[in-house]
Amino acid sequence: MNKKNIVIALDAMGGDNAPGEICAGALKACEKYDDIEIVLTGDSEKIKACLLGRQINNSRIHIEHASEIIDPDEHPANAIRKKKNSSLRVAMEMVRRGDAQGCVSAGSTGAIVAGGVLVVGRLPGVDRPALGVPIPSVEKVSLMLDVGATVRCTPKNLLQFALMGELYSKKIMNVKNPEIKLLSNGTEEIKGDDTVLGARELIEKHEKLNFGGYIEGNDVVWGKADVIVCDGFNGNIALKLGEGIMQALKSLLTDEVKKSFMAKAGMVLLAPVVKKLWTRFNYEQYGGSPLLGVNGAVIKAHGRSKSPAILSAVSVARNFIYEKVNDQLEIREE
Amino acid sequence: MNKKNIVIALDAMGGDNAPGEICAGALKACEKYDDIEIVLTGDSEKIKACLLGRQINNSRIHIEHASEIIDPDEHPANAIRKKKNSSLRVAMEMVRRGDAQGCVSAGSTGAIVAGGVLVVGRLPGVDRPALGVPIPSVEKVSLMLDVGATVRCTPKNLLQFALMGELYSKKIMNVKNPEIKLLSNGTEEIKGDDTVLGARELIEKHEKLNFGGYIEGNDVVWGKADVIVCDGFNGNIALKLGEGIMQALKSLLTDEVKKSFMAKAGMVLLAPVVKKLWTRFNYEQYGGSPLLGVNGAVIKAHGRSKSPAILSAVSVARNFIYEKVNDQLEIREE
Repeated sequence: MNKKNIVIALDAMGGDNAPGEICAGALKACEKYDDIEIVLTGDSEKIKACLLGRQINNSRIHIEHASEIIDPDEHPANAIRKKKNSSLRVAMEMVRRGDAQGCVSAGSTGAIVAGGVLVVGRLPGVDRPALGVPIPSVEKVSLMLDVGATVRCTPKNLLQFALMGELYSKKIMNVKNPEIKLLSNGTEEIKGDDTVLGARELIEKHEKLNFGGYIEGNDVVWGKADVIVCDGFNGNIALKLGEGIMQALKSLLTDEVKKSFMAKAGMVLLAPVVKKLWTRFNYEQYGGSPLLGVNGAVIKAHGRSKSPAILSAVSVARNFIYEKVNDQLEIREE
Repeated sequence: MNKKNIVIALDAMGGDNAPGEICAGALKACEKYDDIEIVLTGDSEKIKACLLGRQINNSRIHIEHASEIIDPDEHPANAIRKKKNSSLRVAMEMVRRGDAQGCVSAGSTGAIVAGGVLVVGRLPGVDRPALGVPIPSVEKVSLMLDVGATVRCTPKNLLQFALMGELYSKKIMNVKNPEIKLLSNGTEEIKGDDTVLGARELIEKHEKLNFGGYIEGNDVVWGKADVIVCDGFNGNIALKLGEGIMQALKSLLTDEVKKSFMAKAGMVLLAPVVKKLWTRFNYEQYGGSPLLGVNGAVIKAHGRSKSPAILSAVSVARNFIYEKVNDQLEIREE
């Protein structure tokens, strides 16, 4: 291993298409970036079989054997604690020891969050982690956090999410002066509950943050904020609802079009437009989701990831490490 | 007035298209139902001008003058308290006095909720009201409540919403044995926060309710519940997000299609399918939203309502009264 390179541990066994697509993604990433080394964690025999015969120089790809796999249905924290030899835990242990600066997994979100806290560890001053997701909207790609790491939050948690989101938006999403908004049930100041109101006061008076007040559900779609702060309960419901609507429309449109020759012909002519819109709103296209607030670059790739999505998640991890995002987080410990 | 008839007070000044479309809706409703009387509340001169010259027998339409209007931007509770002569408050006072059994308004949601509690009054045993909305999904039309009346809830509030939603689903939406689910950040039992978990326990052990556990955001779209229970904060965000996605897709599709002749031609052929899907998912088509838990039929029509939507909201109010929904609500006072 070249010590100057960025080392990323990649959970080869996580996700619907593991290990084949994960290994293929690793090869693509090493082809694209000559400053990274990837350590694939998981069943070494299976990983070797996936890598074998690929016509790519893979001297920067390594294998760390891990005999266990965390199942998506397992209790996340229990699985992380008990399965010390799981591909995800082994990847995270590498980050904890400093043998890797980041890790990527397409496995169980809950296990990644649990591992982020229990194995990798929180950053000093950060009380709770937040899972961020780039949300494609009409005007831009916004960052929404938290979408599932911290179910319910205190105002202070939400302030910390705002600070972490602001930094990520700047450094990784290249937004110059990101506007932060709080997800609420209306834009008027009287809206929100005590927690959201408390967070509003803390974020408003923070000198570093460009705060734009509350954002409603419909304005999320129009991109009326760069960073959307919410608790993990609301964020998770919103994210899944959006995903569900897109999938339902796709499925219903396909079914309806089948029924009529005219509609079929119309669909052929309209296909480029539909594909363009579909691609634009498919948030899976926008790389990995960062688990913010932990002591390393921990990136969650979508469970259905194929090799391009794995490449994208590895790119996010690489940028996160390259830009030293965690070193620049200023959260005062109290 | 025929005392056997159902009397519905209709806020003639509420909504974007008041008073013209409201009065037109009242006429349509009296044409459709011969057992209702409608009292239009608002500026009597303006209402008379709207009714004049319509070729319909309107002997069952009456006017109750009200000189003030509640503006959508006003603080809801303050407006209801201060503007005693507003069209909405006058309509609600009629319900309180028993001069009308229900009222319909396309005005400010906040003011309708505030008036429901402060003027119409809560039903015995009900701690907090809930605003229900029929949500069109792939399989069925579900009822989601609350979408904005009670921002944050206790487990007991959510249990009461489940009971009110179950009754409404049965009596007004004609679902035989409605399946109730709680909106949460996952379907596993370990999901949810303390409030959702507490509500789960209360609803689960209630002998009258057919409880199906948690429902996630994506499953809302597929219609995997008849009644979806949530607090007003989450419900409001989910509803607006869904609305925003549909509007954004419509607007982007229109813009993109304009750019290409092929796409324009395709759109012409595909128009019937798109219109069908659009109509199906446009929740405004599904009549009014009931404010449940108050002592009368209080129905909110969408702010953009034209006469067919007003007719639909009046129909909902009529059914609500006809089916004696409130008399059948069994909530034990503790």
